[in-house]
Amino acid sequence: MGALANLPQPVLPEPADAGVIRAVSPRAKGEDALSRLVALVADDLQACNRTIVANMNSEVALIPQLAAHLVAAGGKRIRPLLTLASARMCGYQGERHIDLAACVEFIHTATLLHDDVVDESLLRRGLASANAVFGNKASVLVGDFLFARAFELMVKDGSLKVLAILARASATIAEGEVLQLQTQNDLSTDEIRYLDVIRGKTAALFAAACEVGAVVSDRPAAEAQALADYGTHIGMAFQLVDDALDYAADQATLGKTVGDDFREGKITLPVLTAYAAGNEEQRSFWRRTIEDSEQTDPDLDRAMQLIAECNAIGVTLARAAAFAEAAKSALQIFPASVYRESLEAVADYTVNRVS
Amino acid sequence: MGALANLPQPVLPEPADAGVIRAVSPRAKGEDALSRLVALVADDLQACNRTIVANMNSEVALIPQLAAHLVAAGGKRIRPLLTLASARMCGYQGERHIDLAACVEFIHTATLLHDDVVDESLLRRGLASANAVFGNKASVLVGDFLFARAFELMVKDGSLKVLAILARASATIAEGEVLQLQTQNDLSTDEIRYLDVIRGKTAALFAAACEVGAVVSDRPAAEAQALADYGTHIGMAFQLVDDALDYAADQATLGKTVGDDFREGKITLPVLTAYAAGNEEQRSFWRRTIEDSEQTDPDLDRAMQLIAECNAIGVTLARAAAFAEAAKSALQIFPASVYRESLEAVADYTVNRVS
Repeated sequence: MGALANLPQPVLPEPADAGVIRAVSPRAKGEDALSRLVALVADDLQACNRTIVANMNSEVALIPQLAAHLVAAGGKRIRPLLTLASARMCGYQGERHIDLAACVEFIHTATLLHDDVVDESLLRRGLASANAVFGNKASVLVGDFLFARAFELMVKDGSLKVLAILARASATIAEGEVLQLQTQNDLSTDEIRYLDVIRGKTAALFAAACEVGAVVSDRPAAEAQALADYGTHIGMAFQLVDDALDYAADQATLGKTVGDDFREGKITLPVLTAYAAGNEEQRSFWRRTIEDSEQTDPDLDRAMQLIAECNAIGVTLARAAAFAEAAKSALQIFPASVYRESLEAVADYTVNRVS
Repeated sequence: MGALANLPQPVLPEPADAGVIRAVSPRAKGEDALSRLVALVADDLQACNRTIVANMNSEVALIPQLAAHLVAAGGKRIRPLLTLASARMCGYQGERHIDLAACVEFIHTATLLHDDVVDESLLRRGLASANAVFGNKASVLVGDFLFARAFELMVKDGSLKVLAILARASATIAEGEVLQLQTQNDLSTDEIRYLDVIRGKTAALFAAACEVGAVVSDRPAAEAQALADYGTHIGMAFQLVDDALDYAADQATLGKTVGDDFREGKITLPVLTAYAAGNEEQRSFWRRTIEDSEQTDPDLDRAMQLIAECNAIGVTLARAAAFAEAAKSALQIFPASVYRESLEAVADYTVNRVS
């Protein structure tokens, strides 16, 4: 399937050199960390990609078509990479982690497909045409298919422990997403509840992806827990940065869409920070745009300006950086290795990434 | 949860008397068969309902709210009833079939929730308001939650064989639904492809529900296969009758909605039969209404009239009756028992039911 040409390409491993890394820009540093991880598990990742393509096949043509479209759309494969690297860090020498990494990616892809369904921003742009509706329904059903297929693959692998981890993570993701729906347009949401949302919708699968690496390697519970903690923390950092980028004006030139969260009235830390710091007039602006969903064209610029003025991006990134540090700490029970080093670098990458 | 008050209530078992049954109307006969099944496994069904309520709970309030709404909306619980009765027919004396019957119902409920999302008829009725959109998104996510919760319950049960059956069924359902999307508005669909659609979207879960009853009882593969065949056949009959009822004018007075399939341009056997039997003018009518989705108010009446004129309902019900007979034949490898008799009566019920 030609779609795979757009995936991260393996590069030759380079010797890790912290001095050199520190000398380059944050952006290059971030990309370098992910590239190094890809290089470290290049063969595993290629095998995982083959599993993904083989298992999204179906006699029902629309399924591989839609799935291929999604694969072609790219994605960093960060979750399956975490499974592969976690297993290798635990000294795993077998093949099971490859199919299980594919399961993790299928679950992620299914949630992405379902996230895209009936998004308010889609309707606001006037796209609720017959085609858009047909597309939404297909997205729901192909998401269901990939989810079921993930469980079929896990059953084939045969570990009830792995099945328990990923079934639990799947339920937690759905709970996080529903909690997000509940908090949408509600500025009385506090930071604790916001963190609950992102712990469910994002960190749970990062945690499961990493924990599976220890379980497949038959490592003790403490190591499985350490990897789950690492995954939770980088998942939190990852989502916090995502939420910051949605209001980061200087990223617009890089092709990243800004303002999606704003248009949907999503409650994220940048908004909560700016709302808390705002005067009465500014709070009124947030209530109108976020709570009442009454937005005009200049409102996004105003929102970004208010967020910049109170350093809400800085606050959000600082929170992300703290999670990244906690992630690295969690790995300290493992002996030093190229894998541990690479996973540590990925923790920094989740904060320093610009897209 | 008060919602359960609306569930089928257990009634005292009555001695089976084929002569009496034949003397009453088809409608009473159908309801009687289901009531007898409910009575036979009344304790199991109550335990299953408790499992369902306990497991659709979540700290995220919207999840039990939406799930309770669905439970309150009724439903015949026919799929979990099949799991319970199949296990008992196989002589099963344990408790595992109760949780597994709940898993079957959760998977069914998840697919119902996803079916209702972005339905064309919904949009045509002008319901794509902000509330309807919010409801759709919640439906997708709560469906995902119930699906994941079903797998958590299966993991707790601990049988990889059961997990394999229900994971496979879940993937097959999604494939059937996507195939239905592909055939929608396409009058060149043939009967074989239509049967493929309903085998996937409906019969697969009936088959799995029944097969699980044999597996949990550790019965030989031939008996598991016989129960899977029985389930497939009654699933086919059930869906054929559903598709007939959607064009059956005399059912309108019973509160059953007619015309949903017509409005959505679904390709079902009544339409295929009438299209094949139609003259050029009539075929042109079907092409306009089904293929081009151009419908005016009197079109549904015309469609029902054309379907009645060529006896397409009769053709469809005859096909259903043949599947019901095949279902009963599949059960003949089991010794006679009140359970087998009740399952045989359910096969007839799927054909004789009027709602």
